[in-house]
Amino acid sequence: MSDIKAAGSQAPGSKAPDASRRSERSRRAIHAAALALVSEQGYARTTVEGIAARAGVGKQTIYRWWPAHSKAAVLLDAFLDLAEQTARQAAEAAGGDGDADGDGPGREIPDTGDLAADLRRVLRATVDELNDPAFDRPARALAAEGIVDPELGAAFTAKLLEPRLRRYQRRIEAARDAGRIDPAVDPRIAVELLVGPLHHRWLHRTAPLTHAYADDLVDLALRGWLVRE
Amino acid sequence: MSDIKAAGSQAPGSKAPDASRRSERSRRAIHAAALALVSEQGYARTTVEGIAARAGVGKQTIYRWWPAHSKAAVLLDAFLDLAEQTARQAAEAAGGDGDADGDGPGREIPDTGDLAADLRRVLRATVDELNDPAFDRPARALAAEGIVDPELGAAFTAKLLEPRLRRYQRRIEAARDAGRIDPAVDPRIAVELLVGPLHHRWLHRTAPLTHAYADDLVDLALRGWLVRE
Repeated sequence: MSDIKAAGSQAPGSKAPDASRRSERSRRAIHAAALALVSEQGYARTTVEGIAARAGVGKQTIYRWWPAHSKAAVLLDAFLDLAEQTARQAAEAAGGDGDADGDGPGREIPDTGDLAADLRRVLRATVDELNDPAFDRPARALAAEGIVDPELGAAFTAKLLEPRLRRYQRRIEAARDAGRIDPAVDPRIAVELLVGPLHHRWLHRTAPLTHAYADDLVDLALRGWLVRE
Repeated sequence: MSDIKAAGSQAPGSKAPDASRRSERSRRAIHAAALALVSEQGYARTTVEGIAARAGVGKQTIYRWWPAHSKAAVLLDAFLDLAEQTARQAAEAAGGDGDADGDGPGREIPDTGDLAADLRRVLRATVDELNDPAFDRPARALAAEGIVDPELGAAFTAKLLEPRLRRYQRRIEAARDAGRIDPAVDPRIAVELLVGPLHHRWLHRTAPLTHAYADDLVDLALRGWLVRE
């Protein structure tokens, strides 16, 4: 994300901003083309040539910007871009830059003082995202590539997954610091107890992914964490 | 597994048993070849031709026995076969047929009366399995194919994953029926709280998969379930 931001913030009046803006538009078009093609025809049938044609760029542009793991790397950047856009829109509405925590694209989980309610809200939003037909197929393709390709998987986990997990972790740590949950609860394991089952159900389609399930997960996980008053 | 068992139990004296035994040997050889090749060279570079050559059968045999999704379907049957063999060996040692529950290959989780200890034992065994280099790459390939291919994913979940989840569920239900865990705990959600994080960590390589992690998961999940005495 920092590339794109840096490009957009160059001094006006020079030639660089126009080139940067064109470059940013091309990147955005490539991201959108990759998401749309994988959504429409599946990952296996999507080619770099097809992405380039749909984005209106030469395929060499894609190979130059994404030298390794091209298709999957484009998809990873498309999801990072999506997360950044969503976070920026939400932050602009609230007054911020969408990366206030300096931890990649995304927003901190709001702290209303009610941990269960805050976690239910963010897990329900994740359910909606995973159930979105435009999101489902590309997200599955990216996850599957990361599962079999260790290098791409490491980038996926470091750039997209871990920043999300750390946001959960900070919200749980805040509840611990506020004396709401038992200090013996390991916040990192606690995060995995919430996020792991949701992803497992989504990836393996064991049962429907619903808001009720998100609520049940939070309720069952938190039974043992909360300090009883 | 029922095909293989039925074939092996035909009446002696006819010609069928020899043909069945040959057929069973070929199936086993195909399973072993698929696991070995995917482990050695990855799923993408493994071909039906390569599996057939290594197993010493014609590729038409594979296409006839696995008409759809050939490579991935062979891999799924290879894992079902492995699970059946493991269960049969364990059951023979204990005196049984390895499918006493009629719920696919695998063994019931032993009930020693100590739910936490029993769950720790089975999750630690799963950690060992997932960390086994011979298992890791083919298991990742099969999971990844199921994630992007809904039909294969449904077979993976129904035949391999759900029978495992139901074994956990029965062990948790037994603890509930014995008054050890709160009746308000939904056993199905409880299972996912244990298995989901373990698979998430394995699939996305977020952190090392260790016995200590298996223990931590059980301890943190069970904090809220156990009836306090």
